[in-house]
Amino acid sequence: MSLNYRIDNLQYANWSEKIFKQMRDGKVDAVHVTIVYHENFREMVAEIEKWNSYFERFPKLIFHGKYAEDVKLARETDRTAIFFGFQNPSPIEDDIGLVEICHSLGVRFMQLTYNNQSLLATGCYEAEDPGVTRMGREVIEEMNRVGLVVDMSHSAERSTLDAIDISSRPIAITHANPAFWHPAKRNKSNEVLKALAAKGGMLGLSLYPHHLKDGSDCTLESFCQMVADTADLMGVENVGLGSDLCQDQPDSVVEWMRVGRWTKKIDYGEGSKDNAGFPPMPTWFEDNRHFGNIEAGLKQHGFNEADCAAVMGMNWLNFYEKNFVPEK
Amino acid sequence: MSLNYRIDNLQYANWSEKIFKQMRDGKVDAVHVTIVYHENFREMVAEIEKWNSYFERFPKLIFHGKYAEDVKLARETDRTAIFFGFQNPSPIEDDIGLVEICHSLGVRFMQLTYNNQSLLATGCYEAEDPGVTRMGREVIEEMNRVGLVVDMSHSAERSTLDAIDISSRPIAITHANPAFWHPAKRNKSNEVLKALAAKGGMLGLSLYPHHLKDGSDCTLESFCQMVADTADLMGVENVGLGSDLCQDQPDSVVEWMRVGRWTKKIDYGEGSKDNAGFPPMPTWFEDNRHFGNIEAGLKQHGFNEADCAAVMGMNWLNFYEKNFVPEK
Repeated sequence: MSLNYRIDNLQYANWSEKIFKQMRDGKVDAVHVTIVYHENFREMVAEIEKWNSYFERFPKLIFHGKYAEDVKLARETDRTAIFFGFQNPSPIEDDIGLVEICHSLGVRFMQLTYNNQSLLATGCYEAEDPGVTRMGREVIEEMNRVGLVVDMSHSAERSTLDAIDISSRPIAITHANPAFWHPAKRNKSNEVLKALAAKGGMLGLSLYPHHLKDGSDCTLESFCQMVADTADLMGVENVGLGSDLCQDQPDSVVEWMRVGRWTKKIDYGEGSKDNAGFPPMPTWFEDNRHFGNIEAGLKQHGFNEADCAAVMGMNWLNFYEKNFVPEK
Repeated sequence: MSLNYRIDNLQYANWSEKIFKQMRDGKVDAVHVTIVYHENFREMVAEIEKWNSYFERFPKLIFHGKYAEDVKLARETDRTAIFFGFQNPSPIEDDIGLVEICHSLGVRFMQLTYNNQSLLATGCYEAEDPGVTRMGREVIEEMNRVGLVVDMSHSAERSTLDAIDISSRPIAITHANPAFWHPAKRNKSNEVLKALAAKGGMLGLSLYPHHLKDGSDCTLESFCQMVADTADLMGVENVGLGSDLCQDQPDSVVEWMRVGRWTKKIDYGEGSKDNAGFPPMPTWFEDNRHFGNIEAGLKQHGFNEADCAAVMGMNWLNFYEKNFVPEK
């Protein structure tokens, strides 16, 4: 059996047959897709209904991935397994029982926050970060029980350290980079990265230009050097990819991501008034067909076969194996 | 492996540890439980949340059954597998995409109607029965695709014949008796029963007094004679149990079942003003501990081992094996 699976642990594209074909062209065995930002439970279910219709329309390209075995099934059947995740806990509303319901529906990652304070924890754009809330502690315990992974990609520092500490199972930062490379608000401190790794957690490295040194002009060499430095800091077994690819999305979508229903004003998030939309991707990673560029870049940089395979997918596969099933 | 599983294909009790223990005492391997009558999607999800909390509190007695294998697992682990069903299609609202969502949540039976006209078909208390509707045809096809069984227990004659005809997979009448034995509005004509059996469908025989000859005073001998006569009519392989046990329910619940939110008046359904509540069960079938009485009664009546095992559970198990999985 092949030991070099390709897994991208975060995308949020304007889904189409074209993109699903590109996943196949790029030999991507599994993708964790964001299905909601600010949606409530019923709106989230409508998003799963949309995905079910994609699965029905494109059964030769994609299927709903639920467990680690599905990544292997994807490889065997030349398809891409699609795993669901939330970037906000809004779909569980104020109801802890919905955690298990969401897991039953195949959801495998949930951010405790997007950019703002949630019922559970604090987002990275808040001025104050009081840490994981009372309900947050209960929900982490329930997520641990059922096998829904805590994702702190958009959360603030203290809340993230709290979540790592409180969670009895490893957590994930599915899409972010180290702040030591590029000090963006969304990138993570060495303290967070070391604490994450110490508990067996995973970091998915992002290709989203706002998270990259030199933005859209970031070079593949600079990215691969960062991967090597991050592996030195965290251990190579705790590092994977989470590209944050937002392909073909109209700029109205980034506005929904940033503004939701929480303000009547415009919030530019990581962008700015002059650069409000989705930034152009680096030329060496424009879509799913370019995963080979990253793999080649890592090898060029000096990663051996095993470490390269670990970063490209095996680490996420190992993480899926341990963390998507209910607690024993 | 034992070939005499006990399956009750319809109960709606006021669930408690006492009842789950009685299921074990009665060696009941699987029960199809009604989780909603008139609830909408979100209210239905809240009912599953309640069941999840029972599964968490009583893991040594019950668990959520999803496929036929779970009946065998139940036997091996000395527990009862609980299968979910709806007595009304209200949880799918007007949204066909919710059929697959409900199947993902573990729902395995859905009545196209309760007593009234629904969006899909006609209930047995309507004056007119125009048959399966436009949406009903679409929903039956979708239920066939995903493996959600059409149940016509409370439906009117023409709608039931339509559903049997339209469905590409066998359907079920989970809880009713033949009208030839007791001509109640809820009991079924020979024409329906023969059409049901001709397509491989199942009839779950009811122990609910309003469906029994002589009501609460029905004798075990009379019941067993009816089972034999029904097996002669339909083939013994198409007959099982669906007791309709409504144990420990307050009479307010039968009012919700009958009245829902569709009228401001009182509707007595199968009861009457003088007999509005739940009628007392026959002394030989008061709760789950009494399944042995039925088994003994059938043997006493002359059923051989194989036919007795077929009626007590094997027929439902075979039906689960074929009909809970997606269409190939």
